Amino acid sequence: KKAVHIWYPYNLDFDFSVMAQFQNFSINNLGDPFIESNYGVHSRQFEVAVLDWFARLWDLQQDEYWGYITNCGTEGNLHGLLVGRELFPDGIIYASCESHYSVFKAARMYRVECVEIDTLVSGEMNCADFKSKLSQNPGRPAIVNVNIGTTVKGAIDDLDRIIRTLEKCGFRDRFYIHCDGALAGLMMPFIKQAPKVTFKKPIGSVSVSGHKFMGCPVPCGVVITRLEHVKVLSTDIEYLSSRDATIMGSRNGHAPMFLWYTLNKKGYRGIRKEVQKCLRNAHHLANRLREAGVSAYLNELSSTVVFERPHDEAFVHKWQLACEGSIAHVVVMPNVSVEKLNNFVEELIGERPRWHEGGGFRVPCVAKDIGQENCLCGVHDKKL
Amino acid sequence: KKAVHIWYPYNLDFDFSVMAQFQNFSINNLGDPFIESNYGVHSRQFEVAVLDWFARLWDLQQDEYWGYITNCGTEGNLHGLLVGRELFPDGIIYASCESHYSVFKAARMYRVECVEIDTLVSGEMNCADFKSKLSQNPGRPAIVNVNIGTTVKGAIDDLDRIIRTLEKCGFRDRFYIHCDGALAGLMMPFIKQAPKVTFKKPIGSVSVSGHKFMGCPVPCGVVITRLEHVKVLSTDIEYLSSRDATIMGSRNGHAPMFLWYTLNKKGYRGIRKEVQKCLRNAHHLANRLREAGVSAYLNELSSTVVFERPHDEAFVHKWQLACEGSIAHVVVMPNVSVEKLNNFVEELIGERPRWHEGGGFRVPCVAKDIGQENCLCGVHDKKL
Repeated sequence: KKAVHIWYPYNLDFDFSVMAQFQNFSINNLGDPFIESNYGVHSRQFEVAVLDWFARLWDLQQDEYWGYITNCGTEGNLHGLLVGRELFPDGIIYASCESHYSVFKAARMYRVECVEIDTLVSGEMNCADFKSKLSQNPGRPAIVNVNIGTTVKGAIDDLDRIIRTLEKCGFRDRFYIHCDGALAGLMMPFIKQAPKVTFKKPIGSVSVSGHKFMGCPVPCGVVITRLEHVKVLSTDIEYLSSRDATIMGSRNGHAPMFLWYTLNKKGYRGIRKEVQKCLRNAHHLANRLREAGVSAYLNELSSTVVFERPHDEAFVHKWQLACEGSIAHVVVMPNVSVEKLNNFVEELIGERPRWHEGGGFRVPCVAKDIGQENCLCGVHDKKL
Repeated sequence: KKAVHIWYPYNLDFDFSVMAQFQNFSINNLGDPFIESNYGVHSRQFEVAVLDWFARLWDLQQDEYWGYITNCGTEGNLHGLLVGRELFPDGIIYASCESHYSVFKAARMYRVECVEIDTLVSGEMNCADFKSKLSQNPGRPAIVNVNIGTTVKGAIDDLDRIIRTLEKCGFRDRFYIHCDGALAGLMMPFIKQAPKVTFKKPIGSVSVSGHKFMGCPVPCGVVITRLEHVKVLSTDIEYLSSRDATIMGSRNGHAPMFLWYTLNKKGYRGIRKEVQKCLRNAHHLANRLREAGVSAYLNELSSTVVFERPHDEAFVHKWQLACEGSIAHVVVMPNVSVEKLNNFVEELIGERPRWHEGGGFRVPCVAKDIGQENCLCGVHDKKL
């Protein structure tokens, strides 16, 4: 049964036995992680330890950051973009069209104009288009969502180029950058050649999911922002004897302990090993697919393999493939073995011819989704 | 150790052994509860069963409602008020000044003008003030937050009177009512003489917390709205093969099972019994306090006892009292026994004289918080 959900970006290798130790308590970290409330059954000490770890990872000093453990990646984006809007009430949200749906939801919720930027075939933000769209609104500050791994293709937006574009277009000191690192935000720091997400650059916030690469068994996430920024949206709540600066109110107190446990058990080295394994296995999968004549694409720093959408809903359902248009994707997580990947490829190439009835099988064209050079259809395959 | 947190509005009687059965899975109900996504490890069947139960409780047919299990009471309020704003983009949010802080946070997030209404001494919305404030904005629709149990005093806003006020002021068909039932939303239906929260009245949404009266060991809640309303904020998300109409994205899949388990184990009758017990015990506590000369107030349909704030931070901390201004409150939940209440009262009256050094002890005046008739200070106590 486990095989059916190997493609979701959830690391299912969590040591579930640890849950048992915390299961007898109603743990609630309501309010601000750094201000103890009057509810005594909390796990703020774990929460702050986890936040410290992430602040260090992204180069923010302990006395310069604020953050909290969220319920999911969406909450991190909602928070980051809200901070951006409070700093620049007149700002426009710029986000690539391949950004997570929560970014567009945030714009709508917050009543902020949202400008969608085109993407390259890789899924990255097209900075030429970004430049041209910035120049259409020179008078209004820019709140930019930068994808550290897009949802479908795992593409990493080029943070440095985005910052240069903003500065060249005259937005110096009039922009706010939120980095949505849902899945890959935790992988990038462990890849040498990856562009660096760091608060040494002029970014305002970073968010990451806790149930994805970290494998926390309940949905959660982390958002880190600059301490000076969060003051704009903090309110003292007397009856909690804490402060409200989070999107949600009551907050799951188990999640911080699971995250803390995972960070301590695996350590920096353990996570790096897992990241390397995922990239290796993803390359293996992409190669196996291509060898079998299935058009496939893999961003260099990603473990998300994109390929032609199987023309069979039962197959899609069985393997729980996330699909969009003509493509499907597989997110290779630490719990996915090479054997499982091989089984998947074999079943796919075994069944594929049967899905295309009459007239013999032809490789579908996915050039517009993943580029001509990655398409193995009759028109684009150079080997034919 | 358990005694220290008996005052929080969390029912700590949960049968924790049931958690063990579900602890080995990463359960995620991402997307719409009614549209199965492509992630197979979900608990939508439990979620929908719980939602059905609440829809029935509040008189909405199965094919007329929409809802979901949230992360907390705040998310329910954020959702209800967002539905209201999407239906009435030009609306004003009206909420009593004793509403939960999430209501004011929502107004700010959503960029909606918010008008605060005065309250009576009981904590209820002052409908005369509501009327006068409505009449200042006759042209703009009203989005009204109705408290089914305020946070500090447990006051129930008079829903029928609020509706009559809206209609009399010419707002027929131009208002949206969200009922914030965080704690008491689940108690009211089980009290015969309580005003009825029902979708037979022109309300748009109701929310309730799951970790309060229901005692779910992780923060969660339920929000129910009319199916027709939620269409305004639904977006199809192809790669999830589901629909986005929730505030959050990934959603805790354990919470629905805990709620389902609790509802089935206790049943309607079991919950009624617990509600009656809480009201009885709250009356006992209020009476004991008054007998001991401590000013105390208890709303008729509430289990929240309000009394003079102890002048000793160590005592407040030990008993984890939530305080606001000159008052503190105690929320009597099913897990609080009469014995515990008696111990609390005895300790309070034993220590109280010592907190007021010099010049002998005098009962502090709390007339402005709970009314002259409930104040036992030297000026207001009629028995003196």
